[in-house]
Amino acid sequence: MKKYRDLSPSPRTIMTPGPVEADPRVLRAMSFPILGQFDPEFTGLMNETMEMLRELFQTTNRWAYPIDGTSRSGIEAVLTSLIEPGDRVFVPIFGRFGHLLVEIAERCGAMVSTLEQEWGKVFDQEQVIRHIGANRPHIVAMVHGETSTGCMQPLADIGKACREMDVLFVVDAVATIGGVPVEPDEWCIDAVIGGTQKCLSIPSGMAPISYNQRAEAKVLKRKKIERGLRPAHHPESSQTQIRGIQSNYFDLSQLQDYWSADRLNHHTEATSMLYALREGVRIVLEEGLEARFARHRAQEAALVAGIQAMGMTLYGDPTCKLPVVTCVMIPPGVDGESVRAMLLDDFGIEIASSFGPLKGKIWRIGTMGYSCRKKNVLHILGALEAVLARHGARVHTGQAVQAALDSYGRSRYE
Amino acid sequence: MKKYRDLSPSPRTIMTPGPVEADPRVLRAMSFPILGQFDPEFTGLMNETMEMLRELFQTTNRWAYPIDGTSRSGIEAVLTSLIEPGDRVFVPIFGRFGHLLVEIAERCGAMVSTLEQEWGKVFDQEQVIRHIGANRPHIVAMVHGETSTGCMQPLADIGKACREMDVLFVVDAVATIGGVPVEPDEWCIDAVIGGTQKCLSIPSGMAPISYNQRAEAKVLKRKKIERGLRPAHHPESSQTQIRGIQSNYFDLSQLQDYWSADRLNHHTEATSMLYALREGVRIVLEEGLEARFARHRAQEAALVAGIQAMGMTLYGDPTCKLPVVTCVMIPPGVDGESVRAMLLDDFGIEIASSFGPLKGKIWRIGTMGYSCRKKNVLHILGALEAVLARHGARVHTGQAVQAALDSYGRSRYE
Repeated sequence: MKKYRDLSPSPRTIMTPGPVEADPRVLRAMSFPILGQFDPEFTGLMNETMEMLRELFQTTNRWAYPIDGTSRSGIEAVLTSLIEPGDRVFVPIFGRFGHLLVEIAERCGAMVSTLEQEWGKVFDQEQVIRHIGANRPHIVAMVHGETSTGCMQPLADIGKACREMDVLFVVDAVATIGGVPVEPDEWCIDAVIGGTQKCLSIPSGMAPISYNQRAEAKVLKRKKIERGLRPAHHPESSQTQIRGIQSNYFDLSQLQDYWSADRLNHHTEATSMLYALREGVRIVLEEGLEARFARHRAQEAALVAGIQAMGMTLYGDPTCKLPVVTCVMIPPGVDGESVRAMLLDDFGIEIASSFGPLKGKIWRIGTMGYSCRKKNVLHILGALEAVLARHGARVHTGQAVQAALDSYGRSRYE
Repeated sequence: MKKYRDLSPSPRTIMTPGPVEADPRVLRAMSFPILGQFDPEFTGLMNETMEMLRELFQTTNRWAYPIDGTSRSGIEAVLTSLIEPGDRVFVPIFGRFGHLLVEIAERCGAMVSTLEQEWGKVFDQEQVIRHIGANRPHIVAMVHGETSTGCMQPLADIGKACREMDVLFVVDAVATIGGVPVEPDEWCIDAVIGGTQKCLSIPSGMAPISYNQRAEAKVLKRKKIERGLRPAHHPESSQTQIRGIQSNYFDLSQLQDYWSADRLNHHTEATSMLYALREGVRIVLEEGLEARFARHRAQEAALVAGIQAMGMTLYGDPTCKLPVVTCVMIPPGVDGESVRAMLLDDFGIEIASSFGPLKGKIWRIGTMGYSCRKKNVLHILGALEAVLARHGARVHTGQAVQAALDSYGRSRYE
């Protein structure tokens, strides 16, 4: 008898805000034999992947490549490469992942200032711009789509204001890339981080990033700084040990040399994850960005129609709803975790609970990438209705799936 | 016509010191559908993987889990979590990857001291111990198997001396884990980092680590330190901004909470790479560590017999040869890169060039994990002989494969 059994994961319908189901083509790509990292055939695939990422990010940036780690590794790579100890970093927070930006920026030695918006809403861009004008940070870091609250922040005006004031603008687009429009060039974003395990439907383990010449200039400036050689230019820096980028693994100046024609040796590129990234982005580009965004909108509409037909209430300001995450108020008297457990155990469906102030109050349902399809939306609506009835919740039965079918009838998406 | 073609990598015989061919069972494991990171079925697989890693590392340590990144991410996670700015870190260097330890330790704010050994040799342990005794570092960091020189450093005496002097001992066993004995408990190693893409034959992208209570105590102490609250205890610290662990992604105190029963949310675990790690380590444990080490020795013997029968010379001190990497002097007048290119283009075989002082002087041939098998060794010997003849090198023809076959005849390994 073998001590450790053959891998045989149960099939799941994953309707969380990530990770979601990986596209079967992506899974297949990972099963191909590997190539050596300096094999010309592999470096060719690396170059091609950079080209594809530029299309995904709709950018003319030279640099678009993955960090070999999960989404937050991409965020940390960008922040640790851009933030010099003592830099003023401004983070407007409207959910959990804004706090993560603060947490990472502080560890990079930033002097962080924040503005907090009530959860379930986003910022009026003018308010953020006024704060930037008054405090003149070196860097503004913001989340685009907050999966914790299901809200999406408009960014274009903030980006333009940052550009005018010569402030670097960093955006966490982990939840939105490949699902809703993300336009770094148009919105004046200097560095953007995407996630794989959400709307791209690639397993977690790589973080595609892109940054422009303004960001690169700061990275390259830090590449040359020797320890202790830089003159102090603000009060904090006299207490600060001046130094270059504090991480080797996340040093964008070294990583871009590795991804350039020079191929300077750094880490050993994660071959199978690169295959996965290439295939996942290839699927996105084949579908077409506009068509893909429209599909996500249509599936969201069907899901929302079904949820509302059941008589349930959505959480959050509808004017800034993130199309790929739908937050649902847990009905009074219902144990949210018991509902989630029954969905998983009896129906093989996973939906998400929530964080911090929303814990126990809402469920979060993702409609992302490969998971975002008619089969899944109809399955979850039928299952949720049955499970809620089983929990004694007052729901209108027999309505949700019909409402979703009606919604599909009004769109051309299936 | 599709702009980006279907993935279809050429089959390669990969005989570098990593990455090497992934075991087909590992590739298959990656193609299974994913599970959510908090799905009880997935957390069960995480727990099982920790148990398997403890067997692989032959340790009773509580903590044995992967960092989600390539091998150097594991090294950086350990060093950045253990090194407080101003800590004295001692790195004995006998090849390229010793320099990497210095590079990372310096970025963590360490006061690094080094001792350098001529490439191709290792240290007499007593010399290292004397240096530790004289300089009393907080941490000693060393490479076990240097793929850059094909040398392996004995560590047991150094480890015991560190323990007696209350110095933390960190070992980079990226190249050796799963191919030759690595015994952290026996050798008094406090934190050890393994690699996946070498003797474990798992694609690059995860770094299994293990650390004991001594290392954990330092990590937990740093978890609690608030910025600026710690009193100075040595001259450097007055210039140093005192702080906790400078990385969020690599913070072992947070990562061990994520890997504990508490499951505190951190990154989104890289599902498919975890499947790969679990399958790769399962294969190792099924083969048995002792049997696996013996297999690596037998394949090495056949390769070396063949190389020498051709009349070629090995590089490095044979008394400290790393069994899984064989360094071969490039014959006078032969263009090493041209030989490598012909091996790849005509025979589909990849061997490695070398770094720094050895550039252009040696080839490095790996016999690691799944790549370490009779079929590959006989293939490369025949091919190398033919390519060298084609390059006009003076080699004894018709001898290499026969010598390897003779070597296999003397062992029970195929």
